[in-house]
Amino acid sequence: MEETKVLLKDSEIPRQWYNILADMPTPMAPPLHPATGKPVGPQDLAPIFPMALIEQEVSSERWIDIPEPILEKYLLWRPSPLCRARNFEKLLDAPVEIYYKNEGVSPPGSHKPNTAVAQAYYNKLAGTKKICTETGAGQWGSALSMACHMFGIECKVFMVRVSFEQKPYRRMMMATWGANCVPSPSTETAAGRKVLSDHPDSPGSLGIAISEAIEEAVTSKNAKYSLGSVLNHVCMHQTIIGLEAQKQLAKIGVYPDVVIGCAGGGSNFAGISLPFVRDKIHGKQIRIIATEPSSCPTLTRGPFAYDFGDIAQMTPLLAMYTLGHDFVPEAIHAGGLRYHGMSPIISHLCKEKLIEARAYNQIETFDVGVKWARTEGFIPAPETNHAIAAVVEEARRAKEEGKKKIILFNWSGHGLIDLPSYDAYLSGKLEAHELPEEEIKRALKAIEKFPKP
Amino acid sequence: MEETKVLLKDSEIPRQWYNILADMPTPMAPPLHPATGKPVGPQDLAPIFPMALIEQEVSSERWIDIPEPILEKYLLWRPSPLCRARNFEKLLDAPVEIYYKNEGVSPPGSHKPNTAVAQAYYNKLAGTKKICTETGAGQWGSALSMACHMFGIECKVFMVRVSFEQKPYRRMMMATWGANCVPSPSTETAAGRKVLSDHPDSPGSLGIAISEAIEEAVTSKNAKYSLGSVLNHVCMHQTIIGLEAQKQLAKIGVYPDVVIGCAGGGSNFAGISLPFVRDKIHGKQIRIIATEPSSCPTLTRGPFAYDFGDIAQMTPLLAMYTLGHDFVPEAIHAGGLRYHGMSPIISHLCKEKLIEARAYNQIETFDVGVKWARTEGFIPAPETNHAIAAVVEEARRAKEEGKKKIILFNWSGHGLIDLPSYDAYLSGKLEAHELPEEEIKRALKAIEKFPKP
Repeated sequence: MEETKVLLKDSEIPRQWYNILADMPTPMAPPLHPATGKPVGPQDLAPIFPMALIEQEVSSERWIDIPEPILEKYLLWRPSPLCRARNFEKLLDAPVEIYYKNEGVSPPGSHKPNTAVAQAYYNKLAGTKKICTETGAGQWGSALSMACHMFGIECKVFMVRVSFEQKPYRRMMMATWGANCVPSPSTETAAGRKVLSDHPDSPGSLGIAISEAIEEAVTSKNAKYSLGSVLNHVCMHQTIIGLEAQKQLAKIGVYPDVVIGCAGGGSNFAGISLPFVRDKIHGKQIRIIATEPSSCPTLTRGPFAYDFGDIAQMTPLLAMYTLGHDFVPEAIHAGGLRYHGMSPIISHLCKEKLIEARAYNQIETFDVGVKWARTEGFIPAPETNHAIAAVVEEARRAKEEGKKKIILFNWSGHGLIDLPSYDAYLSGKLEAHELPEEEIKRALKAIEKFPKP
Repeated sequence: MEETKVLLKDSEIPRQWYNILADMPTPMAPPLHPATGKPVGPQDLAPIFPMALIEQEVSSERWIDIPEPILEKYLLWRPSPLCRARNFEKLLDAPVEIYYKNEGVSPPGSHKPNTAVAQAYYNKLAGTKKICTETGAGQWGSALSMACHMFGIECKVFMVRVSFEQKPYRRMMMATWGANCVPSPSTETAAGRKVLSDHPDSPGSLGIAISEAIEEAVTSKNAKYSLGSVLNHVCMHQTIIGLEAQKQLAKIGVYPDVVIGCAGGGSNFAGISLPFVRDKIHGKQIRIIATEPSSCPTLTRGPFAYDFGDIAQMTPLLAMYTLGHDFVPEAIHAGGLRYHGMSPIISHLCKEKLIEARAYNQIETFDVGVKWARTEGFIPAPETNHAIAAVVEEARRAKEEGKKKIILFNWSGHGLIDLPSYDAYLSGKLEAHELPEEEIKRALKAIEKFPKP
């Protein structure tokens, strides 16, 4: 009998996160204060984040110890299994070995709690009583809800109204973990009320929800704000995924030729890939591929520029690939990938050609997702299907070249809460959605007044 | 750092199922043909089951080898983790160690594929091209859908109409795995059409759905029928759970004082408990507890009698605890526990006092389920909450008695597809539902004409 999974014991869980800032071969352009055009300092972020997270955001230490209380919560579901997709390999009939990290084993079903637990813990230490956040599809909001309850912190989630209505299960999940999830725009903040007075039927947007969450954080007592992707410290918390994968692959004496992850804000991709990027910086031959939707092709078609992280222009200016902070992607089903920008770390690595990027339309992604579910069993999240699409493309190339290839990818989450999107695919209701060229021109125009990185 | 999980490597998966028929201390009353009153023989079952499963149903071999192709599929998610619920223990503040088998890690999220994969495999060997089944809440239908696709067998699921409409995600899950799921009563069978002509708005029932599935199985070419619980071979396939648990506990030198599982048709409870019942038969001091809903208290309040397994009276007469084959339980949210009867194996063990039974109302069960979710993270299925209720009761008693107790239970599945039931609980919309005494009298009346076991 051939082994299908490589497991780590609890005692083998990595005790440190990896901070790639220590190994960047070229300096990253710093975040800028939009008013002054000067790099932002820790004090600029202090009203919304606890100092421990701000220190991690700017740290140049290579390894950051994971505190024991965080490890204890991680152990509820981590180390996650590294699995070999033997059945999917057979279907592809190509000279490939496919390994995947199953991050769907976490309670909310995705990689998101890796940073949610860490952020809740550091907030607890800092005396935070309440954390406010926004959520789109709901993966982030549900992960933070669980983590906050575990550390006795109140959690308030502003969920984009259209998702709130389309994905009632996510709201129920947050309520089960004791969080208060309201549709945004809400009547609970000045920002929300203003939108509602202008547009009573507003479906909401991530930008509006961010504005509401920050407003409530800064106006509530002992409250902070929390972000589920994009930032350096969030990417760092996710490196537990790639570090575990390296230990697991070492156990079976395997090293990948290609590492693949889907990228929305970038933290999931960072999680699986950054420890391998480190190897690449140190001379290892390896290809590392970020995948994204063709309707929101930030890395593949956006310019590298300074831009806001949010439509409401409340964040610092970040140096990143962007489609413009006012870009609103098509309502595709991979809600976690509908972000106009990209983590500055991932953007910098892409600019430096340490990683590659590919875009796929949602019909291609659901096509491979259904094939996956029918061979490997597990139904992938729509976001995860974007990674599987690249796995299939790499396998096809290996077959054409007649060259053996070892592929590792991050199975970022399961799709059990996203089944209506499979229903839409199976009944032929999905559209492919390629971004028109004019949208790229519009993006360039939106950012032309900002400094150049 | 204390270990939270005990894992088995792929190579440590048990290679045999355990058949308790070999160890029964007293003979079980055989299933009877309703027309003749004589025990049914293998040939009576041959039109609807492949012979390999019929042989397992009546086998007295203690250990049955698990064929390699079944093991291969099991390895997609098995061996399942044995976890220590340290956070829940802290909440209970009682002198207990709580261990649970997490069967929620399977692709459909429950223990059901343990038998679905086995049944699909033996059908494949027998040349079956299509399997028909019924499903209530949808756990069974989805597991069989996945298993059938893996072995290239068409799958047709008749889903009770009210569940079909209330739980659209289950239907979508089955479709993703390529099955055809229709609401029952349907227009596709004579049985369904008859119901619809009398009651065009019929919400359906498990009894009607069974009739439709059997009719389509016997009237289609190369088709068979499949059942997800109750029968001996189904219980046997589930023993992989308890066998793994024994290996895992042995690794840490622990043996439980109490083993707990929820029981609807009985296969889940059988899965965790039968290997421990064997130990008990051989003299081990251990208590084994089946839990059920107070609205459907088969083991705790029903008589032990011969009765039909289905409302349509298509099955043999089974010797079991029963509330009467025409009993329709309240529409509680633990759909998998809404069954009037109980596996003959489990019934026999209960009659022989080798196991105990307890009933809980659904408000108590959701109360502990939410506490579980908020400490351990994972949201339990409503069925699983019935097991947790007994864990809490045992912990309370241990505290009162000041005596240390080691508890093992089966965490039979996650509740991510059942979130509306949590929503109903959290918004105060659930009722407790205790079965009125008159219903027990009615049950006794319904079965008085049958032979006595």
